[in-house]
Amino acid sequence: MKIITISREFGSGGRELGRSLADMLHMDYYDREIISAIVEKTKFDEKYVENILKNGTMQSVPITFGRTFSYSPVNDNVTKILVSQHQIIKEIGAKGRDCVIVGRSADVLLEEYNPVNIFVYADMASKIKRCRERAADIDKFSDRELEKKIKQIDSNRAKSRELVANSKWGRKESYHLCINTTGLNINDITPVIAEYARFMFGRTV
Amino acid sequence: MKIITISREFGSGGRELGRSLADMLHMDYYDREIISAIVEKTKFDEKYVENILKNGTMQSVPITFGRTFSYSPVNDNVTKILVSQHQIIKEIGAKGRDCVIVGRSADVLLEEYNPVNIFVYADMASKIKRCRERAADIDKFSDRELEKKIKQIDSNRAKSRELVANSKWGRKESYHLCINTTGLNINDITPVIAEYARFMFGRTV
Repeated sequence: MKIITISREFGSGGRELGRSLADMLHMDYYDREIISAIVEKTKFDEKYVENILKNGTMQSVPITFGRTFSYSPVNDNVTKILVSQHQIIKEIGAKGRDCVIVGRSADVLLEEYNPVNIFVYADMASKIKRCRERAADIDKFSDRELEKKIKQIDSNRAKSRELVANSKWGRKESYHLCINTTGLNINDITPVIAEYARFMFGRTV
Repeated sequence: MKIITISREFGSGGRELGRSLADMLHMDYYDREIISAIVEKTKFDEKYVENILKNGTMQSVPITFGRTFSYSPVNDNVTKILVSQHQIIKEIGAKGRDCVIVGRSADVLLEEYNPVNIFVYADMASKIKRCRERAADIDKFSDRELEKKIKQIDSNRAKSRELVANSKWGRKESYHLCINTTGLNINDITPVIAEYARFMFGRTV
């Protein structure tokens, strides 16, 4: 089974890269599907789940969760959503189908399947530009406000990952390849990354 | 003009990648040639120059050198060698020929030419293994001693770079692409990186 995981800074085009890689390599693609699955499992409202997963849900109280002392989800609902998400990721792995998964600590949770783990990043100006191009209703935010929001979302991603991993979110050592998308068109770079992924699947692990 | 700079952790195969990229893309290659040029300029002994550049030559006394407060070379000879190296790198840029340069802060010194900057890294076990395969007379060192040596050389690279740059050696933000060579054969991965470089040269900067 071939799995590509894409971890990414908010606004770096990582999601877009994940989708176009999946298209090009004819692999299943998971992103929002996971939220729907969480909704089905937990019966929480979709917006609520989405908000919990996106916007700071952790506080830095050391507890044991997964394999390490780490951050504590702020309440039971958050714990329920995260546990459910972990189960869903594990189930995706168990299906045995080739796939691309964006975010959600899939690089850690699916470790046993030797995924190819890619990290996508960009400089702040480029991320702000990308956010403005992609999202509706964003004009009301200043660049400064967007920067703060981007950092907050990334910090939450880092903390969510630390619930299950000892290695650090966003540190190159945690990934096979890190690509800076500053100034790049994601569709244009996709064939190159697809070539890299093909190479990695061809190697003996 | 097309320039690729390769920065790398000691033992990660970065030098090997640089050479095979240059071969594949028909570009000039600079590495030891730079040491010969320094020897010619400074009249120092080759082994001495090599040793100064490789093994810790900095102490952390803040001085102004280049564009930032940074580390101080320990003596006049070291300063002379570093200044000479910087001039040589600048001269390589001024030649206007397509080239690959390994190390020597070329990513910073040749910034004006928009080089494609690649960082090569690997996990410690892989770096130790690669060192043992490549270097003669290395059996006398334990893994622990090699690890210490590798870290020392990399720390010196980081400090040398800080003499001329504000951005950090080895942090992904300082590069366009970071590739983890753990378990990879460098010759096998070269075509993929060459493809990436071709893409980057084709983009509008």
